[in-house]
Amino acid sequence: MNQNQLTSLLEQMTTEEKVGQLIQLATPFLKGASDGGQITGPMVGMGITEEVVQNTGSVLGASGAKEIKNIQETHLKDNRLGIPLLFMSDIVHGYKTIFPVPLAVGCSWDLDLAERSAEIAAIEAAVSGIHVTFAPMVDLVRDPRWGRVMESTGEDPYLNSEFARAFVRGFQGDFENDNQRVASCVKHFAAYGAAEGGRDYNTVDMSEWQLRENYLPAYKAALDEGCEMVMTAFNILNGVPSTGNKTLMRDLLRKEWDFDGVLISDWGAVKELIPHGVAEGEKEAARKALEAGVDIEMMTECYVNHVQQLIEEGSLDESLVDEAVLRILKLKQKLGLFENPFRGADEQLENELILSKEHRESARELAAKSAVLLKNEQVLPLDPSQKIALIGPFADNHDILGPWSWLGSKDDTITLDKGIQSYASEVKIAEGSGVETSSNIQLDLALKAAEESDVIVLALGESSDMSGEAGCRADIRLPQVQLELIQELKELNKPIVTVLFNGRPLDLHGVIHETDALLEAWYPGTEGGQAVADLLYGTSNPSGRLAMSFPHSVGQVPVYYNHYNTGRPKNAPDAQERFVSQYLDSPNGPLFPFGYGLSYTTFTYDEVTISSQELKEGETLTITTRITNSGEKAGEEVVQLYVRDTTGEVVRPMKELKNFERISLQPGEEKEVTFDLKEEDLRYYHSNLEYKSDRGQFEVFVGPHSKQKSSVSFQLIK
Amino acid sequence: MNQNQLTSLLEQMTTEEKVGQLIQLATPFLKGASDGGQITGPMVGMGITEEVVQNTGSVLGASGAKEIKNIQETHLKDNRLGIPLLFMSDIVHGYKTIFPVPLAVGCSWDLDLAERSAEIAAIEAAVSGIHVTFAPMVDLVRDPRWGRVMESTGEDPYLNSEFARAFVRGFQGDFENDNQRVASCVKHFAAYGAAEGGRDYNTVDMSEWQLRENYLPAYKAALDEGCEMVMTAFNILNGVPSTGNKTLMRDLLRKEWDFDGVLISDWGAVKELIPHGVAEGEKEAARKALEAGVDIEMMTECYVNHVQQLIEEGSLDESLVDEAVLRILKLKQKLGLFENPFRGADEQLENELILSKEHRESARELAAKSAVLLKNEQVLPLDPSQKIALIGPFADNHDILGPWSWLGSKDDTITLDKGIQSYASEVKIAEGSGVETSSNIQLDLALKAAEESDVIVLALGESSDMSGEAGCRADIRLPQVQLELIQELKELNKPIVTVLFNGRPLDLHGVIHETDALLEAWYPGTEGGQAVADLLYGTSNPSGRLAMSFPHSVGQVPVYYNHYNTGRPKNAPDAQERFVSQYLDSPNGPLFPFGYGLSYTTFTYDEVTISSQELKEGETLTITTRITNSGEKAGEEVVQLYVRDTTGEVVRPMKELKNFERISLQPGEEKEVTFDLKEEDLRYYHSNLEYKSDRGQFEVFVGPHSKQKSSVSFQLIK
Repeated sequence: MNQNQLTSLLEQMTTEEKVGQLIQLATPFLKGASDGGQITGPMVGMGITEEVVQNTGSVLGASGAKEIKNIQETHLKDNRLGIPLLFMSDIVHGYKTIFPVPLAVGCSWDLDLAERSAEIAAIEAAVSGIHVTFAPMVDLVRDPRWGRVMESTGEDPYLNSEFARAFVRGFQGDFENDNQRVASCVKHFAAYGAAEGGRDYNTVDMSEWQLRENYLPAYKAALDEGCEMVMTAFNILNGVPSTGNKTLMRDLLRKEWDFDGVLISDWGAVKELIPHGVAEGEKEAARKALEAGVDIEMMTECYVNHVQQLIEEGSLDESLVDEAVLRILKLKQKLGLFENPFRGADEQLENELILSKEHRESARELAAKSAVLLKNEQVLPLDPSQKIALIGPFADNHDILGPWSWLGSKDDTITLDKGIQSYASEVKIAEGSGVETSSNIQLDLALKAAEESDVIVLALGESSDMSGEAGCRADIRLPQVQLELIQELKELNKPIVTVLFNGRPLDLHGVIHETDALLEAWYPGTEGGQAVADLLYGTSNPSGRLAMSFPHSVGQVPVYYNHYNTGRPKNAPDAQERFVSQYLDSPNGPLFPFGYGLSYTTFTYDEVTISSQELKEGETLTITTRITNSGEKAGEEVVQLYVRDTTGEVVRPMKELKNFERISLQPGEEKEVTFDLKEEDLRYYHSNLEYKSDRGQFEVFVGPHSKQKSSVSFQLIK
Repeated sequence: MNQNQLTSLLEQMTTEEKVGQLIQLATPFLKGASDGGQITGPMVGMGITEEVVQNTGSVLGASGAKEIKNIQETHLKDNRLGIPLLFMSDIVHGYKTIFPVPLAVGCSWDLDLAERSAEIAAIEAAVSGIHVTFAPMVDLVRDPRWGRVMESTGEDPYLNSEFARAFVRGFQGDFENDNQRVASCVKHFAAYGAAEGGRDYNTVDMSEWQLRENYLPAYKAALDEGCEMVMTAFNILNGVPSTGNKTLMRDLLRKEWDFDGVLISDWGAVKELIPHGVAEGEKEAARKALEAGVDIEMMTECYVNHVQQLIEEGSLDESLVDEAVLRILKLKQKLGLFENPFRGADEQLENELILSKEHRESARELAAKSAVLLKNEQVLPLDPSQKIALIGPFADNHDILGPWSWLGSKDDTITLDKGIQSYASEVKIAEGSGVETSSNIQLDLALKAAEESDVIVLALGESSDMSGEAGCRADIRLPQVQLELIQELKELNKPIVTVLFNGRPLDLHGVIHETDALLEAWYPGTEGGQAVADLLYGTSNPSGRLAMSFPHSVGQVPVYYNHYNTGRPKNAPDAQERFVSQYLDSPNGPLFPFGYGLSYTTFTYDEVTISSQELKEGETLTITTRITNSGEKAGEEVVQLYVRDTTGEVVRPMKELKNFERISLQPGEEKEVTFDLKEEDLRYYHSNLEYKSDRGQFEVFVGPHSKQKSSVSFQLIK
């Protein structure tokens, strides 16, 4: 179908049919769905009639080629103009082959593998009939209390932007010509990650300067990469709910950024304009959301029940509806649905591709690269001859897929126990405690297993419902029973290797000093237990680097590397003892900084050289260093480039990540790493929101993490 | 001196002399000061010469009539044009008669007494030779980690505004004709209270909407009351340090608010533009601060060393300097210094007035009204016949004046021990522990004292250096040794009455459940121990109400009553169990809400009546209720009026304090309280920053605290 045909289709549509395109319903509403087709209960409450369902534009959460084909087929029979449904789902970090959670992927600093993981998710989803994934989520995060930090790639706008691009490339590929890719929907627009108090859905308030400088870049990067759709956020931004925010959507997204794809609300967010207190009822909510630019209302009924009347009353311009419908039809056209409403859905390919060996191998590789080794007092890697006591609630726990892995199956998941069994000559396993409860019997069995072992591998963490959406915690320590378990085991004076399965940076009091090695495995996905075992036994060498700082305690939050200096920095040479920006009872900085992670080998950095002391517009500086694997194992290092603009028109971060390279080195091998820097890389938002650079001095840091101290400097000449 | 004479004086001044007016130095720089007159060490480092000192416009931190007269006299001898010095000091909550800290005063909800406390501070300061006080501090605060919450009157813009006015009235009175008042300098402009992470001097970032809605009103209120001066804040606001923030000072303060008084930097804040990273050196810092509108540079040398050169180079407009100097000269004129450079300084009056019986009585009264009774399980008031064990680091501790009481003397301070001795027949006293350290001997003595008693009065808290400027804590519980002391005493099964001396809302885990009564005394000042004893023995009846919420834990911070509803409020009738705005492990709300406090009597509220269901512009609604003292003791109640705007153009707070009245009732007595509401009271900032009201429904709550649930409603008709 071409543009003219689309326009002509639009002209044939009744207002009711148009408005139908603007609602998204879950499968229970749809005829042809295994659980669907019954207009009862909540659907009646929503005022959803059979006619509405017949006109519906898109479906949420369906999966499986057979099911989706069935729904589509049934739908097309009832739909007057034969407009196919769009099938959308949250395929966030894998379809059935589950990859590590995005925060873990962020810690891989491996854009190629991240892209590949999204590609595999897209392939599995596409052959199962899905057209659009509600991913990537690219919200910048600074508060580990927030449950959805696991769904973001972390605290840095540059790293998030690079991952946003990688995910979009992976999901979408050439989806207009390739039925095994899906359209991608970046979320949550905007600044959902800055919820006050780290409490989900809570107030977000920041200056436009802050928004542009840190929070918007990753959304923009996803769109620059061609991302087809955008999802609104649940939060208010500066008093106005994102889902009714005209400035954000019409002015910024549509006009300034020239985005012409489909904009969808998050689940129920249009109707939530009522509890937010900016709409008196559904009708006002519908008007505000549509005027603000939301094309599709997900799972509430404000549009279908009120838009027609709003138009008839003259209080809504029908052209807004036409625009929205046309965008949706265009997306259907891009996906080729008018020609082939079943698109990639293919039961045979489902059998062949989903959870294929190749897919699982990628998941295993990415899980290994995502884990971050935070401590190792000469305990790791383990030797297969050692007698292992594998203890803890995650010793043999399938709950390591993490939130947003609804199609992942525990049965397909390799637990840590199974992974370790593939290496160890002797493993005794004991739970020790549950995630949040414990018993004396559990403890006794664990102590017994530990006593008979050479090394204790302690698998601790948070159950997946302790993070993810609405999974916020005011206390970010491990649950008390697990801390007690560590204390008990500590008294045996055996080496303890702790592996953490969790979704957020934790307060590690009671863990870090009590343990000889600590591996942050996050929720590592389907191959998680195997990947962690690969790391513990040195088949893989840890190379993950934190994408989000680990605070000392929740009382320090937020802690992030790219903060400002303040007028009274703590460690200035002439700093006073008292009157500096500090806590009396805590460091300012994190326990483990952004970019940090250990390896089983060591990397030595030569002095950094810079091609010139001056940089002019149009020129390129090159920053070079030589890195040597000075240890005895092959390993990968993430070489990081940070810049500090020493004086700006506004305050500038202490450091900003500008580039990085993941390199692989054999023992004794050395490699030169070169980064380019141009004037464009030094631009920032001024107080008047102009984006430009200024002359002056810059410091450049190349090193293994964000606390790298030695630097070279140059002048930007203008 | 009249306006013409001032202008003519300005014309006679050399640039050097003008710039001299723009620096403020501490007494060690000044000849004639007991510790002064030596241009050595740091002064040489600052480039301060004798000539600079001769031209200096104002002095920081001098006190005492004799000293100040001596400095002034000496100065006038050396000063070519005979321009007198201005003497400024931080007289925050008392000169030598120290009142409770401002956060405590906020809890009094007693504007008359607050005004009287400022008046007394002004009298004592004025007779000691001081002309200007750096008070009130009216920064809105929401984060108890921040040490300076003790210096604010709390979390509410309306209450802060009312106190801002009261303090300004009290300090200034008719200071142009009354030598026993001082000029007032409101601080810190702007939004210093919103330091990220509750860490002093740290980043502040918020939307202009938020700034105007919550943070600016109290500064504006102080200026509307005639406050003479404004002090800048240390923090950045949206990327630009307040002290170099043209938008804030030129556009908002000078133009929009029409403020023509003197603007002074906080201590060293001009030079701090360099570490903030917006000025390359002192010269740029001087230019930026002066252009942004700072008249006086406190305690750094950027102006005196660079302004002349900046003018000569043509990079600074001399008229900016002239303006600033003229404002300073005008203030000197208003204070009558050209006619009487010694103004109110009077050694005899110092002897008569300072710490007079009358002043101390006011301090005692305000301390009693500031304390908040948070729990009382039929233990209080105490009976003089009871044998008391007075235990804890604050049992006999003079450190109850709180920060910013530099002229207060511990020798003049009545400790809790002394206060209780004035009532109790038998008191055994034991420290039990220090504030942050303890010994077994201390503990044993305490247990022994407790065992022999009928009631344990446990005096706990934070030493004053644990709060105040740069006194920030990541952990807001009482120090561990004090929590252990409670545990030990708890085991004796005697009634425990805990009195807290501290500067911030605390996490009361380990305190509140372990104690039978809890009185939050804050830092109550010179008469603190007596006032607390008056309360414990029922001579006074507790009537303080929290001006800042007490969180359950630091992991919930920020917790404040006037928050927004979110789109997924926790307690909505149709709320889901999981997907609501909440923590998994903590309530959302505070342990004790804003406005909360107990009494020894009970107050019963009749149903609230409203004069009409509709309000039109120009009309007045009256809200009425009858309150009865239904208990057996005379007492005071703070009747609070809150309004909720159910739907706005932007989100609106769950409740907003709009009025309150402190009433006194004998047992059985009843009183009708009436509040007026007008359309003006319902205005708020819209997303385009327009300040106006909208038609629609409003709920009105009248009750004893901000969690009052029952309401009446009305429609605003437009």
